[in-house]
Amino acid sequence: MKQQKLAINGTQLRQTLETFSSFGATENEGVTRLSLTEDDVQAREYFRTECESLNMQVSVDDLGTMYSKLEGEDPDQPAIYIGSHLDSVKKGGRFDGVLGVIAGLEIARTFVEHNLKPACSLIIVNFTNEEGARFEPSMMASGVIAGKFDKNTMMKKTDTEGMSFAEALSNSGFEGSIENRLTQGKAFLELHIEQGPILEAESLQIGAVECVVGMVCYEIEITGESNHAGTTPQHMRKDALTAANQCLTELHQGLGNIDETLVYTMGRFNVYPNVHTVIPNKVVFTVEARHREEAILQKVEQILGNVIDSMDGVCSYSTKKLWSRETVWFDQKLGQIIEKSADSLNLSYKQMVSGAGHDAQFIASLLPTAMIFVPSAGGKSHDEDEFTTWEECENGANVLLETVLELTELL
Amino acid sequence: MKQQKLAINGTQLRQTLETFSSFGATENEGVTRLSLTEDDVQAREYFRTECESLNMQVSVDDLGTMYSKLEGEDPDQPAIYIGSHLDSVKKGGRFDGVLGVIAGLEIARTFVEHNLKPACSLIIVNFTNEEGARFEPSMMASGVIAGKFDKNTMMKKTDTEGMSFAEALSNSGFEGSIENRLTQGKAFLELHIEQGPILEAESLQIGAVECVVGMVCYEIEITGESNHAGTTPQHMRKDALTAANQCLTELHQGLGNIDETLVYTMGRFNVYPNVHTVIPNKVVFTVEARHREEAILQKVEQILGNVIDSMDGVCSYSTKKLWSRETVWFDQKLGQIIEKSADSLNLSYKQMVSGAGHDAQFIASLLPTAMIFVPSAGGKSHDEDEFTTWEECENGANVLLETVLELTELL
Repeated sequence: MKQQKLAINGTQLRQTLETFSSFGATENEGVTRLSLTEDDVQAREYFRTECESLNMQVSVDDLGTMYSKLEGEDPDQPAIYIGSHLDSVKKGGRFDGVLGVIAGLEIARTFVEHNLKPACSLIIVNFTNEEGARFEPSMMASGVIAGKFDKNTMMKKTDTEGMSFAEALSNSGFEGSIENRLTQGKAFLELHIEQGPILEAESLQIGAVECVVGMVCYEIEITGESNHAGTTPQHMRKDALTAANQCLTELHQGLGNIDETLVYTMGRFNVYPNVHTVIPNKVVFTVEARHREEAILQKVEQILGNVIDSMDGVCSYSTKKLWSRETVWFDQKLGQIIEKSADSLNLSYKQMVSGAGHDAQFIASLLPTAMIFVPSAGGKSHDEDEFTTWEECENGANVLLETVLELTELL
Repeated sequence: MKQQKLAINGTQLRQTLETFSSFGATENEGVTRLSLTEDDVQAREYFRTECESLNMQVSVDDLGTMYSKLEGEDPDQPAIYIGSHLDSVKKGGRFDGVLGVIAGLEIARTFVEHNLKPACSLIIVNFTNEEGARFEPSMMASGVIAGKFDKNTMMKKTDTEGMSFAEALSNSGFEGSIENRLTQGKAFLELHIEQGPILEAESLQIGAVECVVGMVCYEIEITGESNHAGTTPQHMRKDALTAANQCLTELHQGLGNIDETLVYTMGRFNVYPNVHTVIPNKVVFTVEARHREEAILQKVEQILGNVIDSMDGVCSYSTKKLWSRETVWFDQKLGQIIEKSADSLNLSYKQMVSGAGHDAQFIASLLPTAMIFVPSAGGKSHDEDEFTTWEECENGANVLLETVLELTELL
């Protein structure tokens, strides 16, 4: 192909995003497009139609993952994969996932409309059930493709109505062949909204994502003794909520000073029996922490253990590790190309981490992978208020295109 | 009557208590005898039969309250009322309420078996729906009798099956006449288990209850902002649970040092959306405090206000007073007679407060009233494990009898 500067058509990108917003649109400008529901199938069919109108070849794997190929000048070269997911959470936003798929479509359109062929094939991917909002866990298809999840187990996962993933997949008409799965390639690139407030707060346009951070999640159970709130003197109580309160205070003191990029959250917190006239006899809460460095997460675990050990003996404590995951580092060279691309387009950028999980973190085990972030207004996502300006979306798509051009130049 | 020392029959008291334990018996030696259910009706009928076998005259008022009269030597003298309630909470204990009714029955039996007549009539009372476990609020019948609750409103209260109190009362066969209501008398005496751990902890046998303590109950709502637990830097969060934790710490510091007999409880505590990967955007919790002195409760309210005002502006706060009640002081002379009675029986005793509510607190507005407490093992009540030894029950009944004798002597 000729090495000329290309840019995607921002108006077309916006129109396509708006069309996708209509599949499962909610009252408040959000979308509810749970995986493999009628709304998701509508979005998939629209995506297929648009791709086919560009003479792209659409195939589907045994997990419903869609691959839309724009053939390159040299079809024998490993392909560049671009993608994300079209499903959403319940009352989610219009950008999460969709942007990464549509940007790929617009890049293909840009080549076609300029009568250009990329040096290698471009394959736009839509991963099934990334959100896990209908069938747990999230990132289901990419997880199976990367060998992280067992396919048979996933097929038996059911939604709240009791329908299995296998049945929903079969009903959708998007059950393809295992031979079509992504197994290798030149690169996988995922453009996504940040889902956090950092780019906005720092007035930056592009994030070059170096990793998806590792995390640990613990459940702490504190057991005291219930008694009548009116008749039990304060010093004779075994109040599990009072103990939990001390515990949280010490955790904040300990965890708050480890590292400024550590994030930790006590998100689930249940008190029993939860009656205003009864002293609480049990509190169960989660402590979840994320950081890119394994050593920091180990420190979190150590502090958690120390805090629990230091509690007085009025109540009893137990801790359970619910799960953990290691940091997934993206391809450094790809990251550098993304930064260079942003730079060449005069867009402000920074290297950053992803605190949220993405399909890219699984795909990274198969081929060189990287992610590009664009700002999320107020850091909001998984919410009808999720918002990224059209210009920011266009910037992200252009960095993606520039990265593709740079990569094909390097062929 | 002759002024001779009488004592109740401990074996008979125990047998009667055990018989009552069979009405609504649970697997684990507790009782579930919700007001006006079949089990409660069985207990009521057994009570009536036993009273009638002693030639006592049983009447019922328009709220189902039962009055069983042992006629005194001078029927024109104001009567002494003794009583409590036969209903229980779900999976409650064998002693709460029942003891105060059965002790009255045993006192009547003691007079009859000794061929004695009390100087004035003795009326043993069973108040309907004291627990409020089937129909809220608790102390329903005594509340209406004392003019604290509106009868029509109470009649419309429904249980979880949607049955109204009026319908349940009518079905029970225990709907009597408004003319039979308790309106005045010489004294009302209620023997009850302590429902707290103080007598046991101090190795005392009898509590002379001077008051039912006043209380205030507030609901605090803290509003922050939900965001993704993985992508939102710690310093940019508006975490409602973190704010609630600071708030609780300061409340403990403030309330913990006011007075050693103050009891306060955060019993209900709900976190939203309560998902481990989402920063909490709302916490709603109750703060309930009880003390006999109004000034102390005012101090509680003041500290609560100060703590809320002192919180930083990251989250927003609102407080709502759910309710309050003033301390109900019992009759001092009756209290002195109870102490004198315990002393004359060589039983150890102390003046104490009731942290829990009782029918006596409403009846106290109609006639001189006092309560006698006996120990609760481990302070437990409203629990199948509720326990008071037979000897402690007998002690309580004998103090009650001695008090009656002392009162009739004073006639």
